[in-house]
Amino acid sequence: MTNSGEPTLRQLGEFPVIDRLVSDRRQPAGVSVGPGDDAAVLSTPDGRVVVTTDMLVEGRHFRLDWSAPQDVGRKAIAQNAADVESMGARCSAFVVGFGAPPDTPVSSVQELADGMWQEAGPLGAGIVGGDLVASPQWVVSVTALGDLGGRAPVLRSGARAGSVVAVAGELGRSGAGYLLWNKGIGGFEELRGWHLVPRPPYGQGSAAAEVGAQAMTDVSDGLLADLGHIAEGSGVTIDLMTDALAPDVDAVAAAAAAAGVDPLDLVLSGGEDHALVACFPGAVPAGWRVIGTVADGAPEVLVGGRPWAGSAGWQSFD
Amino acid sequence: MTNSGEPTLRQLGEFPVIDRLVSDRRQPAGVSVGPGDDAAVLSTPDGRVVVTTDMLVEGRHFRLDWSAPQDVGRKAIAQNAADVESMGARCSAFVVGFGAPPDTPVSSVQELADGMWQEAGPLGAGIVGGDLVASPQWVVSVTALGDLGGRAPVLRSGARAGSVVAVAGELGRSGAGYLLWNKGIGGFEELRGWHLVPRPPYGQGSAAAEVGAQAMTDVSDGLLADLGHIAEGSGVTIDLMTDALAPDVDAVAAAAAAAGVDPLDLVLSGGEDHALVACFPGAVPAGWRVIGTVADGAPEVLVGGRPWAGSAGWQSFD
Repeated sequence: MTNSGEPTLRQLGEFPVIDRLVSDRRQPAGVSVGPGDDAAVLSTPDGRVVVTTDMLVEGRHFRLDWSAPQDVGRKAIAQNAADVESMGARCSAFVVGFGAPPDTPVSSVQELADGMWQEAGPLGAGIVGGDLVASPQWVVSVTALGDLGGRAPVLRSGARAGSVVAVAGELGRSGAGYLLWNKGIGGFEELRGWHLVPRPPYGQGSAAAEVGAQAMTDVSDGLLADLGHIAEGSGVTIDLMTDALAPDVDAVAAAAAAAGVDPLDLVLSGGEDHALVACFPGAVPAGWRVIGTVADGAPEVLVGGRPWAGSAGWQSFD
Repeated sequence: MTNSGEPTLRQLGEFPVIDRLVSDRRQPAGVSVGPGDDAAVLSTPDGRVVVTTDMLVEGRHFRLDWSAPQDVGRKAIAQNAADVESMGARCSAFVVGFGAPPDTPVSSVQELADGMWQEAGPLGAGIVGGDLVASPQWVVSVTALGDLGGRAPVLRSGARAGSVVAVAGELGRSGAGYLLWNKGIGGFEELRGWHLVPRPPYGQGSAAAEVGAQAMTDVSDGLLADLGHIAEGSGVTIDLMTDALAPDVDAVAAAAAAAGVDPLDLVLSGGEDHALVACFPGAVPAGWRVIGTVADGAPEVLVGGRPWAGSAGWQSFD
């Protein structure tokens, strides 16, 4: 990133940069102390708080030649928000640790923050605090807080035989987009954008909890890998119906063909879409579609009754 | 860090490593969902939650040739805990994002986690969740949650003329230790250790809030810099009495002499001790000592009635 006369983090300094980042942001009503003190204070009317954290490292989780800073900000918020959703909660606040080289233009950091607020604002949540430090590459560490609104949290361990597995949101798009970026294949703008900024089905986590979802998670490592956590946690066998995945397969088919991969493998193994998958004992809410069933048996995820021979999903240290 | 036959993060993989890190840890009673799901859930009996985050980057905030992994873990928890304390709250939980190269020995990560638990456990707080990712160097991002126990948060903006400024904990030790490490000066084991693992005066934040502290912060960037935030936030002049700082000056005098610096400058400008400084309208609690006064005037911090000509404290992007 070149510095064409704009001030850098080194030139402006930590506190003036933070002043720029936090000014003109409207905090939700529950935030009694926002940025600018040693810590933030927010109300937790439910009497409990949900908390989760994800770290994104430049070069590993995003590339600044693919993503605009705004995209990085949106993605960092979205993937944490999806974790809160998948507990059956709603996001109330975020705190952000951000590391970047001292020669980073302040405008890039403002764009990152703009992206975070764009994603968090519609959720009714604010960025209530953070830390800004020097680092050899960008590191974005987001912690999300959420409110259960009186509901029991939906864990990974509650799935029972006889239930159905359903998904809210899309599958395979981010994985397809990643392949397009990685192989330098043009076109497919929407899929390429999907990889940079996922679109979790906000609100569907609490909707699922309201109707008694037994187990839920979000698709971050890949459908098979993430449902595998539910199968393990609940001690059940999950069987997916490939027919039910046809809309996703169709949506990525052309891109998969261009990239030379199996579209169903993309749908089953592609991560970072942050769709929600849950197990329901009865009818599923609007916006959810049934893609499989839960049965007694070894803790594994089958596809059409058989183990899947394709990709295993995202591995953190490969 | 060499790998002498021990498994690395790459060899063992994300989830087996996390299993090792979270097994055999005892979570406090308020944690209803701990590590292993998409998010943790903890009770917030006060109806509010305090939240703060700090990011530590290898080479910038710690060095693995100075600090053992355990020291890094303790420091990361301690500096976040001090921020919670300085609101007048008590720590209830931490979440941790950790990035490290794939060839990092798993045992080093376990030692880091051990250090975190050593520091968090006595506070009655647990590490309730986290994220483990690949990064070119170690990055430790901690978010601390705290409980106000019915008290009003103590901000930086409440100091009023006529009050006294008092400190709990020690000053200048970490700064002295840093100089000793940096200049390769041997001996002074306690000061060198203080730089690696600060010792915040746990419990004194809520004690200060109980007796009506008007404003409080912790000394992370240096006494003058951090009191400067209170002077700015409150619109007051703070005047420090050098005589009152004599115990700290004496404690670092020999090390300052060995390093060729002014011990008073170390006490006034050295950061990372995470002592608490607060303004009180009346008597100070046990464990606090008065070091200055608050007066109407320009928002600045004086020493014996005059501006200090020494160091300005820690700068994040220098």
